[in-house]
Amino acid sequence: MTRPTPLSGFPEWLPAERLAEQQVLDRLRRTFELYGFSPLETRAVEPLDQLLRKGETSKEVYILRRLQAVEGAQSGSASAEPGGARLGADDEVSLGLHFDLTVPFARYVLENAGKLQFPFRRYQIQKVWRGEKPQAGRYREFLQADIDIVDRDTLPPHYEAEIPLVIGDALRSLPIPAVRIMVNNRKLCEGFYRGLGLEDPEEILRIVDKLDKIGPNAVAELIIGAGGTESQAKACLALAEIRSQDTSFADAVRALGVEHPLLDEGIAELSAVVETAREHSPGLVEATLKIARGLDYYTGTVYETELAGYEQYGSICSGGRYDNLASAGKDVFPGVGISIGVSRLLGLLFDSDALAVSRPTPTAVLVALWSEEERAASNRIAAALRARGIATEVAPVPAKLGKQIRYAERRGIPFVWFPASASAEGGDQVKDIRSGEQVAADSGEWNPPAADMAPTLQ
Amino acid sequence: MTRPTPLSGFPEWLPAERLAEQQVLDRLRRTFELYGFSPLETRAVEPLDQLLRKGETSKEVYILRRLQAVEGAQSGSASAEPGGARLGADDEVSLGLHFDLTVPFARYVLENAGKLQFPFRRYQIQKVWRGEKPQAGRYREFLQADIDIVDRDTLPPHYEAEIPLVIGDALRSLPIPAVRIMVNNRKLCEGFYRGLGLEDPEEILRIVDKLDKIGPNAVAELIIGAGGTESQAKACLALAEIRSQDTSFADAVRALGVEHPLLDEGIAELSAVVETAREHSPGLVEATLKIARGLDYYTGTVYETELAGYEQYGSICSGGRYDNLASAGKDVFPGVGISIGVSRLLGLLFDSDALAVSRPTPTAVLVALWSEEERAASNRIAAALRARGIATEVAPVPAKLGKQIRYAERRGIPFVWFPASASAEGGDQVKDIRSGEQVAADSGEWNPPAADMAPTLQ
Repeated sequence: MTRPTPLSGFPEWLPAERLAEQQVLDRLRRTFELYGFSPLETRAVEPLDQLLRKGETSKEVYILRRLQAVEGAQSGSASAEPGGARLGADDEVSLGLHFDLTVPFARYVLENAGKLQFPFRRYQIQKVWRGEKPQAGRYREFLQADIDIVDRDTLPPHYEAEIPLVIGDALRSLPIPAVRIMVNNRKLCEGFYRGLGLEDPEEILRIVDKLDKIGPNAVAELIIGAGGTESQAKACLALAEIRSQDTSFADAVRALGVEHPLLDEGIAELSAVVETAREHSPGLVEATLKIARGLDYYTGTVYETELAGYEQYGSICSGGRYDNLASAGKDVFPGVGISIGVSRLLGLLFDSDALAVSRPTPTAVLVALWSEEERAASNRIAAALRARGIATEVAPVPAKLGKQIRYAERRGIPFVWFPASASAEGGDQVKDIRSGEQVAADSGEWNPPAADMAPTLQ
Repeated sequence: MTRPTPLSGFPEWLPAERLAEQQVLDRLRRTFELYGFSPLETRAVEPLDQLLRKGETSKEVYILRRLQAVEGAQSGSASAEPGGARLGADDEVSLGLHFDLTVPFARYVLENAGKLQFPFRRYQIQKVWRGEKPQAGRYREFLQADIDIVDRDTLPPHYEAEIPLVIGDALRSLPIPAVRIMVNNRKLCEGFYRGLGLEDPEEILRIVDKLDKIGPNAVAELIIGAGGTESQAKACLALAEIRSQDTSFADAVRALGVEHPLLDEGIAELSAVVETAREHSPGLVEATLKIARGLDYYTGTVYETELAGYEQYGSICSGGRYDNLASAGKDVFPGVGISIGVSRLLGLLFDSDALAVSRPTPTAVLVALWSEEERAASNRIAAALRARGIATEVAPVPAKLGKQIRYAERRGIPFVWFPASASAEGGDQVKDIRSGEQVAADSGEWNPPAADMAPTLQ
């Protein structure tokens, strides 16, 4: 075998990075569970027709075939479609890898509705796959951490105000730069556009979504190109400029003189989101009326999140309220959710050395080994330490003492334990190899400082 | 959308089951880290040629294609192979989903050898995919939890004795039936067969591997069919019958009168494995000389694990030592590892109601809501409880009190919190809805009993 090389778009972390990722995930989980979200996982695959329901993402899907089915096709089986998306056997549905966690979750809710308690809140931390061209910060395989709350028939709007509290607490539990959640409301925009007399509010939303990329002049031109007047375009841009960390955005919107019942509803909902967040975490949430979110399925509050110092990389955490994603016959399950792009976030932080762990191994203590015959004695010490929650390894070989200490040093293991049998002083000793301090110790009683028990994020 | 139905072979847990799985994984992780294993994940895909190196599993691989590439092929691109395993674009390698975690780990070690510290110990908990026909207990997507220790050039045999300690501690940390790890050694078998004069020991191993399925007579016939004599076949069967929880297996092997240097080496290694385990966990490990493991790459100790009461379902945790899995040019990385079939194990336990969680939600407290206007007050109580680690939800709507209590009951939430504002007695109260006991409480101080803090495995 020749030495393998990385696959573009499929990032893999080194052990220290993975240890950091694991700690990040543990803290996210902890916060999600404090808010009563249940862990959930769905299978990696969905029927292809479900994945292709949303036109926009159809190009990004990885389809699956069993090699056996392919080989059957190559040896002349009539049922195979050359190059096609179907699996070989007729009784199997065509499958693709999921490209997000929202579509699979909506399907899961429909499939298991009779066994779930509504409103149902779940978090889901899984890999997703997109066959896009890999670019900086854009992967073909990446980890997402999603939370959603779905209800049967109707979903009270206060859940749209709760989501930013959860995400705020979760992200603020990490030693990362400050986050700002930018919120808007689809009803507010749609009501405003309709109040202005614009007849295709979705089209206007898609145009305004390009504001940061193409600038206000180009946006105005596109609105006019879509049948709007100059003054309508101007009003749309004026709306998009409004932002506030309190409910004063409402006055600014009113000052534009547009009226529509949907606009009133949107302003009320967005005010509740901003007010709830302001009481909980001042500075966390900002009404930012240019936020549009490209995807069609959002129907109320939408969220995007900026990381201070990393604004140019776009949103690290996005979502919104959706009313039409999960429905079967008369059953409708509206929901609201948000998704943290974990791989993308960590990729940015690792690349700029902004996140690391205190040591690159779980091990706190290396038990030295005087001879291979004394391995059982060193094992007993290790077992006694582990029984009290102290992560411990035994030295691989009875090398010279200096070599065993260097073994620990290279790994960032803070303590080396010297078993009594060959120690000059008689009893067991433990050495902090950073300070050089060495003390007598009993493996049934000694504890490392709390900060050294496990690797911590820093 | 019509109501979706499950996909055969792609199991999904309900929330309570997933909560149990999560707790199982947390305990496994905890033990792995106590032994100094670092968490690691590899991408889900590997180049197809790497996945097909081992002939035996070639039929089980799921291959991936980007839908875009397929559509390019259908519109007449010359580079596409009909039904073939290659992706559409020439610059992309053919990819398949990994079918285990050992092959990807071996590749990862080769790829990152310069950045790893050896011996390198990692654990890896990920889904794997196999395109096999789904059957009872055999899935197309399932979760594995693997530990491996790899070293550069040579790997001391004491690591083969350490693996059962880790797995024993990990599985014994779960409230599941007793496990027994059955160990054997490839050198012992090969040396014995060679000492007997049998010239294709691998073939004999593959035949003996079928013992439980086809019985001793059929095994003897196959050995004779493969060129063995009747007395050689008898000796092979006698060897396969030997089992002991101490090193007495060695005497039983010697009593068969066969000699070979490789046999001596195997006996010594297996004795060390049994002796180390016996000191650490009496009854955990048994030398079981019929254990063969089908896969070719094992070269030393091999492991299989039985769960008491579930013996007929086969091994829940298997592995062994391998010397030739990871090599590139002169670099060789021998290793030893074991893999817990988590989905399979949990599927068995869930199906027989042998594993569950104490409640199906993380939430310990539901804060009641007297009116929508008082939501901010209920939110404040929830925030105070969460700040002290108590998982809390606020009631979804200001329904009648009985309805709010039933909401908690249906979810298994043990406590309902009554905010002061509308409570007859003046201050906040909290009710244990199982016992009916209700007491005055301060959200900055009250704690539930430790057993109610989080769902626990039972």
